Amino acid sequence: MAELSRATGVSVPMIKYYLREGLLPGGERTSPNQARYGQEHVRRIQLVRAMADYAGLSIADIRTLLEHLDNPGRGLHDQLGAAQKAVTPRREPGEGEQWETAARQAGELIARHGWVQNPDSPAMRTVTGVLLTFAGLGYDGVLARLDEYAEAAARIAEADLAAVAERPDPEKMVELVVVGTSLGDALIASLRRIAQSNASARLFLDAPGEGGGSDGS
Amino acid sequence: MAELSRATGVSVPMIKYYLREGLLPGGERTSPNQARYGQEHVRRIQLVRAMADYAGLSIADIRTLLEHLDNPGRGLHDQLGAAQKAVTPRREPGEGEQWETAARQAGELIARHGWVQNPDSPAMRTVTGVLLTFAGLGYDGVLARLDEYAEAAARIAEADLAAVAERPDPEKMVELVVVGTSLGDALIASLRRIAQSNASARLFLDAPGEGGGSDGS
Repeated sequence: MAELSRATGVSVPMIKYYLREGLLPGGERTSPNQARYGQEHVRRIQLVRAMADYAGLSIADIRTLLEHLDNPGRGLHDQLGAAQKAVTPRREPGEGEQWETAARQAGELIARHGWVQNPDSPAMRTVTGVLLTFAGLGYDGVLARLDEYAEAAARIAEADLAAVAERPDPEKMVELVVVGTSLGDALIASLRRIAQSNASARLFLDAPGEGGGSDGS
Repeated sequence: MAELSRATGVSVPMIKYYLREGLLPGGERTSPNQARYGQEHVRRIQLVRAMADYAGLSIADIRTLLEHLDNPGRGLHDQLGAAQKAVTPRREPGEGEQWETAARQAGELIARHGWVQNPDSPAMRTVTGVLLTFAGLGYDGVLARLDEYAEAAARIAEADLAAVAERPDPEKMVELVVVGTSLGDALIASLRRIAQSNASARLFLDAPGEGGGSDGS
C-alpha cells in the first residue's frame, strides 16, 4: 500500500478510506497484513481523484459512477447517455409564465442548432433557468449572443465525441465520457477565464503595459 | 416582505435568512413590523439566487462577491480581474516531474492561442491538473484536441467581453463578469451535453430511431 501511495501521490489513509468506501477493490492478500496491488488499482485511484478534485463529485456519486463503469451493458449510445446523466446536475423545473417563456427560448435555441432534446432533461432545465436569470437581470447583451455559445458548445462536443469514437475499447469510451465531460468542464471554464483576461486587457487597458494586469494573476 | 417573496419566487424564510446573513440590505421601516422594499431588493435577491443555484457558491463567497460589487474602485480591467478571481476555484499547485511536464504543455497551449497568463493563477493550475490527469489516464485523443477546446473557449470569451463592453454602466459590467461567468459555465456545460447527446446519436445509433435515445432524457 505504501507503493500504491507513491505511485499515485495519494496518502495511505486516503487509500484506506477509498477501500472502506468501496471505491477501490481490495488487493490480492499475500500475508495477513500484506496485499498486492496492481496497475488497475493505480488507475482506479487516478479516476477517483479526478472525479473528486475536478468534477467536485461526492463519494456517493463517485461510487454510482464506478458501478456504472464496472457494469455497462446496453448499446453504446444508451451507455453514453447514462454516463452523461451521472455527470449532469439535477435541477427542479420552474413554473409560471416567465419560466415558460425561457423554456420556449431554450427550445428555439437548440432547434436552431439542429439539436433535439427532451425539454425536461437536466441540461434543458439548466439552460432554461440560466436564460430566465439573464432576462431577470437585464443581461440583453448575453441573450443576444446565445448562438455563439451554442456554436462553441457544438465545437466542444464534436471534439469530445471524436476522442470517444477513436478509443479502441468500448468500455473505456464510457469512462472517457464520464471523466472527459467532468474534467472537460473544468478545462473549458479555465481556458475561458484565461481568454477573458486577455480579451479584457486588449479592450480595457488603454495604454499597453498599464498595470500589467494582463498576466491574469 | 410577502410582496418581495411574490416578485422573486423566493420564500419569506429564505428572504429573512438573506437579511440575517447580510446579503440583502434592510428595507425602509414604515412601522415597527413593516418595511418597504424596492426594485433594488428584487434585483439583489435574483443575484443571490443566481450565484447560489448556478454558480454553487457558498453564502460566504456570495457575501464577498457582493461586497466587491458594492465597492469596486480601480481601473476596469483590474476590477474585472478581481471579479473573475472570485468566481475561479482556488487550486493548490502540484509538484514533481509529471506536474512540470503538464505545466509546460499548458503554457505552450495558451501561447499558441496568443494568451499570456501567470502560470500560478488558479486557472493555469486547473489546466495543468486536468492535462496531468488526462495523461495519467491515457486519454490521448483528448490531449490531441486541446487546441479545439482553446478555440471554443476563445470564442466564448469574445462573446463574454463583447456583452460586457456593450453595457452603458461600468458598475454593471463588473456584475456581469461575476454573474455571466458563473452562469455562463453552467450554460455552456449544459449546451455541451445537449450537443454531445446529439453527436452521440449520429455517431453510435446505427439505425435511425433505434431506442429513441437522441432526446437525451
